[in-house]
Amino acid sequence: MNAELVFVGTELLLGQIVNSNARYLSEQLARLGIDVYFHTTVGDNRQRLQRAYELAAGRADLIITTGGLGPTADDLTKETLAEFLKLPLQIDKEELERLKGYFAQRGIEWVESNAKQAAFFAGSTVLRNDLGTAPGVALKHNGKAFVLLPGPPREMERMFSQYAIPWLKENVIEPGTPGLYSRILSFVGISESKLEKTISDLIARQSVPTLAPLVSLGEVLLRITARARDEQQFQELIEPVLKEIKLRAGKYLVSEDGGTLLEAVAERLRHSRLTVSAAESCTGGLFSASLTSMPGSSEYFVGSVVAYSNELKTNLLGIPAAMIERHGAVSKEVAETMAKSVRKITGSSIGLGITGIAGPGGGSAEKPVGLVYIGLDSGKEIRSVAHHFSGDREFIRQRTVKAAQYLLHEHLAENSQ
Amino acid sequence: MNAELVFVGTELLLGQIVNSNARYLSEQLARLGIDVYFHTTVGDNRQRLQRAYELAAGRADLIITTGGLGPTADDLTKETLAEFLKLPLQIDKEELERLKGYFAQRGIEWVESNAKQAAFFAGSTVLRNDLGTAPGVALKHNGKAFVLLPGPPREMERMFSQYAIPWLKENVIEPGTPGLYSRILSFVGISESKLEKTISDLIARQSVPTLAPLVSLGEVLLRITARARDEQQFQELIEPVLKEIKLRAGKYLVSEDGGTLLEAVAERLRHSRLTVSAAESCTGGLFSASLTSMPGSSEYFVGSVVAYSNELKTNLLGIPAAMIERHGAVSKEVAETMAKSVRKITGSSIGLGITGIAGPGGGSAEKPVGLVYIGLDSGKEIRSVAHHFSGDREFIRQRTVKAAQYLLHEHLAENSQ
Repeated sequence: MNAELVFVGTELLLGQIVNSNARYLSEQLARLGIDVYFHTTVGDNRQRLQRAYELAAGRADLIITTGGLGPTADDLTKETLAEFLKLPLQIDKEELERLKGYFAQRGIEWVESNAKQAAFFAGSTVLRNDLGTAPGVALKHNGKAFVLLPGPPREMERMFSQYAIPWLKENVIEPGTPGLYSRILSFVGISESKLEKTISDLIARQSVPTLAPLVSLGEVLLRITARARDEQQFQELIEPVLKEIKLRAGKYLVSEDGGTLLEAVAERLRHSRLTVSAAESCTGGLFSASLTSMPGSSEYFVGSVVAYSNELKTNLLGIPAAMIERHGAVSKEVAETMAKSVRKITGSSIGLGITGIAGPGGGSAEKPVGLVYIGLDSGKEIRSVAHHFSGDREFIRQRTVKAAQYLLHEHLAENSQ
Repeated sequence: MNAELVFVGTELLLGQIVNSNARYLSEQLARLGIDVYFHTTVGDNRQRLQRAYELAAGRADLIITTGGLGPTADDLTKETLAEFLKLPLQIDKEELERLKGYFAQRGIEWVESNAKQAAFFAGSTVLRNDLGTAPGVALKHNGKAFVLLPGPPREMERMFSQYAIPWLKENVIEPGTPGLYSRILSFVGISESKLEKTISDLIARQSVPTLAPLVSLGEVLLRITARARDEQQFQELIEPVLKEIKLRAGKYLVSEDGGTLLEAVAERLRHSRLTVSAAESCTGGLFSASLTSMPGSSEYFVGSVVAYSNELKTNLLGIPAAMIERHGAVSKEVAETMAKSVRKITGSSIGLGITGIAGPGGGSAEKPVGLVYIGLDSGKEIRSVAHHFSGDREFIRQRTVKAAQYLLHEHLAENSQ
């Protein structure tokens, strides 16, 4: 069983958009145990698309396309497949009604050209589009399977996971086919090179399962991969290696299933029943935005003060102007006082203070761009860390947010016993 | 003249990485006036790679590959081309010395397998790798041109722009070939459908230049494209259409070169010499983080209060508990009072208040998930808008941030005369 992915769209050949569908579908098929040998990208051109179908059908059992299902004259994916397979398209009345309803609900005028989106092959399966207009279609014909998906990633991913996978499992994939399973372990507080050294013999072995370090921003990730019939068999296969990794680096492990440091922090906060607030300067709200990106964060996040100007640091957070003058706004003293002050103002259990120079301006020889201080006040203790990140403004801000999450995680981990 | 791009790497077929090289190279080739009809992605497999070369050479004049130039046994791109063209590879002594120097300089042990990276075809041109080890290669053979580039995007992009483009201009591209130029216009305050309607005759004409609306989050973008010899000729070609567009929709145009709403807001703030602060609830700091992502934002952004809990709305922002009880925390009244209060607390010229239900929890029949109120207080007037976004938590937060930027932009635009 092998598949070919055919991406249809002149905008891809012109480099106007990144083909993120290629990564998503490839990963999904690997997980389903379906080998992918080729990707082909082709423009909105009937002749070349026909040629791509010929090629793909000549060397693969399953052909999956994205794009070209919309209402315009440029949308040719279904029409060209109809010509290639010599199968007529016919309007599906139910789907036509759904489409008209979609337009009516949104108050958009119905134009007759939209009707072609409701045309399907006899015996084909309509794949519903929960997030847009163009439905997909799946069919088997002369021993080959075709799955046609829309181009917009959000619509495509929902359709694939909700409707195409069940169709593939029922019509294409042999039951019991082993798929590629993987799990991502996240570590914090250990460098990538130190982790690799700690488990270098396990990585070098390259038996089942395989281990591969991944590059990530501020976290150290390790991917464990193995072919397995199902999740349970995968779990059994990785258990001995997982046990060994935990023995050697367990204290740095924050998640066994691809969870981020942020998720680990949120989990610990929920369990601890503690609340958090923050006083942010250089991150300008980004730390608070990261915490509140988690559903249910109102359980533990109270609020924060973004004190970008020195006046606000003094007026709102009560940082003495003399302290700013003596130590500078970017200093251990100010970071700790910010933490202490925001904790008091908001009445939270823990307060964080973040101050630094994100650049590109504002640096000096003594305090260069990338210098960051993060303070934490828990009422019982005040701690702080200094970092010196190098990179552009956005990178420094992102790394600072991770470092603040890490300081919070460290504090919570130490106080959870 | 047309080209085919061949991307080599099993990691692409497994969906482990996004193929960003596809977008970069396609865009570069379009700009050079070279048509690209197909992209092919193939794994690290000699037989299938050979098949990809056959296909590409059968239908294109120029074949550009990325990936598979490294030192490992999996790196087969050059070796397979050697077999396909029946051209032997021979070690280039100068390049070998450069490679050995690269390793010595970094204190990495030289392993003999690295030598194959210095092997080239007789008569081929070495494309230097300024940022890594594997050099690229360019050659013409039997009327076809081949350019082999490394896989890592940073190395590939540098090599392509610095060395491959000059080689193509000298060896492949006819002098004076017109290239594809484009520019992106950004509009705010007008819906995509309304903009399309306003200029539908210009779009329908599809003459030179062509106009195409693009989908974006919260902004309406229009791409103007034309073939031109150079930037100046392009400018001359688009001038009449640009003038007509400005005549009809100029008041909504925020940028003529792909700029975002945020950039337009920052520009207006800088010119106005006004300062801004915000009181955020559902966006949890994301609006402030967006403003402070701009370098130099300390000129106009003072700070903000993220009041996630109702207690903090009352204690820190002085929103009367009775108001929250009567109208709800998500209401026009609270949004406007937040704006007014944060303006007063921070002493900024303009205050914004943002309150809403980002979900997934917290919605009701009366106030569903996605309902958002944004208030703006300028001292002279208080205005507010209500929105109802549908989507997941992150989508709703992002759209809310854009809507707040837009409200601010609208206010600044109206008061800039």
